[in-house]
Amino acid sequence: MIINKDTKLCISVSARPSNIGTTFHNYLYQKLGLDFVYKAFQVDDIEHVVKGVRALGIRGCSVSMPHKETCMAFIDELTESAAAIQSVNTIVNDNGYLKAYNTDYIAIYKLIEKYQLDKKQSVIVLGSGGMAKAVVAAFKNAGFSQLKVCARNAETGSNLAALYGFEYIPSLNGQTADIIVNVTPIGMQGGSEENMLSFPETMIQAAHTVFDVVAMPAETPLIKTAQKLGKQTISGAEVIVLQAVEQFALYTHQRPSDELVQEAGEYSRQMVLQLQQQK
Amino acid sequence: MIINKDTKLCISVSARPSNIGTTFHNYLYQKLGLDFVYKAFQVDDIEHVVKGVRALGIRGCSVSMPHKETCMAFIDELTESAAAIQSVNTIVNDNGYLKAYNTDYIAIYKLIEKYQLDKKQSVIVLGSGGMAKAVVAAFKNAGFSQLKVCARNAETGSNLAALYGFEYIPSLNGQTADIIVNVTPIGMQGGSEENMLSFPETMIQAAHTVFDVVAMPAETPLIKTAQKLGKQTISGAEVIVLQAVEQFALYTHQRPSDELVQEAGEYSRQMVLQLQQQK
Repeated sequence: MIINKDTKLCISVSARPSNIGTTFHNYLYQKLGLDFVYKAFQVDDIEHVVKGVRALGIRGCSVSMPHKETCMAFIDELTESAAAIQSVNTIVNDNGYLKAYNTDYIAIYKLIEKYQLDKKQSVIVLGSGGMAKAVVAAFKNAGFSQLKVCARNAETGSNLAALYGFEYIPSLNGQTADIIVNVTPIGMQGGSEENMLSFPETMIQAAHTVFDVVAMPAETPLIKTAQKLGKQTISGAEVIVLQAVEQFALYTHQRPSDELVQEAGEYSRQMVLQLQQQK
Repeated sequence: MIINKDTKLCISVSARPSNIGTTFHNYLYQKLGLDFVYKAFQVDDIEHVVKGVRALGIRGCSVSMPHKETCMAFIDELTESAAAIQSVNTIVNDNGYLKAYNTDYIAIYKLIEKYQLDKKQSVIVLGSGGMAKAVVAAFKNAGFSQLKVCARNAETGSNLAALYGFEYIPSLNGQTADIIVNVTPIGMQGGSEENMLSFPETMIQAAHTVFDVVAMPAETPLIKTAQKLGKQTISGAEVIVLQAVEQFALYTHQRPSDELVQEAGEYSRQMVLQLQQQK
């Protein structure tokens, strides 16, 4: 692929960019023969980033922390997924008209459908950050009515629960649910709680489905324990890939096969390690 | 070269972009192993383009018609070359601080030095557009004092001459000069005056040096006639390559060899034709 004046540029913007998106998208462009190129940028001034995306005709812009809410003032239309959680992670530029989406929300919603989670079942969501909001909203809009939000931070936890009409609980003590969802960094590679279980084993035992939004590693202590106990599991690796595929489809109007997506995911993880070693 | 989050992006912006810059710069990046990528954009809203360049940390931005003057309001510093003609064709972004240059002016000035043109000689410049301004200013600042500006348009012609303290002449009738410079589209490929001589043959005969700023083709009727008559000639192809090399050096702090520059020039001309045929 030769980059030329008509090559479409897609970008991602965040305070601390990684190489995952850049290598993932560029791999798929090349395999599918699309005249696109993708690059991550480290940015602070989100207003002029968004206005620059419009002025330069940049086709797509993935938005990460801490710009997911602040970017909303500068786009033309909030679509359903972004409106549902008042948070944007994807901007699509159609000839200067900017539409905003949240593909984290879309990915969670699609996984609820894919795994045929039963809306009559009870749900406990652990966490109260931006991703927890996407999770709670997706369960709400998928028709779930028995959901509790548990968070150490009482303020953000009770606000999130109240926003969608659910109950806030300050602790997991004595709780059980059919579906338990971790949206905290517990179990994340390199974190201070890397080797910890986000839910007590008794709760994992009592659950039907265990969902961990932590993506690195795909097999967190929570997922491993749930697998050992024969539970249905959904991993953060699925969320991250699915949300990236949704972005890819919004930008290019092409939906790569599951096989190709897996290939691109593996390639991008390899490249991230290789690029880190070159430093 | 794998595009990654640290790859530096350079762009060009104009109302009607070509593929020359994109293929020329990317060829040199690859040959020199530089972690850069270059792409042209078609743009209208120059304010938000320039602010977007700063906000995204785009390393360099080449500016073409019709944005060369209007972009000046949004940059941080006009360097000497841009100030000399109040026109910008190159913006360099050093961590959010935007410096503007005019590499057309720099290229003309360097060619006057390279060909050791004698500042005691007389000069006639034909044309009164943006490039004519770069030519007149470069001769002025190189120490030439006998210069006449000739243009069909009396207003722009006399304004340009007055700006640098030179004489305006409405016609070439009865004129001669040691150095004659064409800065009109006469002789340009695909133009309505493609096969015409920009100066009468008697003036070419009487001149010492013949300089044509038309780049396509390198051998215009003016240059061919001058060569036949044994005159020193300077072609627009030299201007266009030299100005691009100056931009390249400003963006990357690397100066490619003459050989490599010629290779890149040939490659980009080939690619432009190939990309046109794919349409």
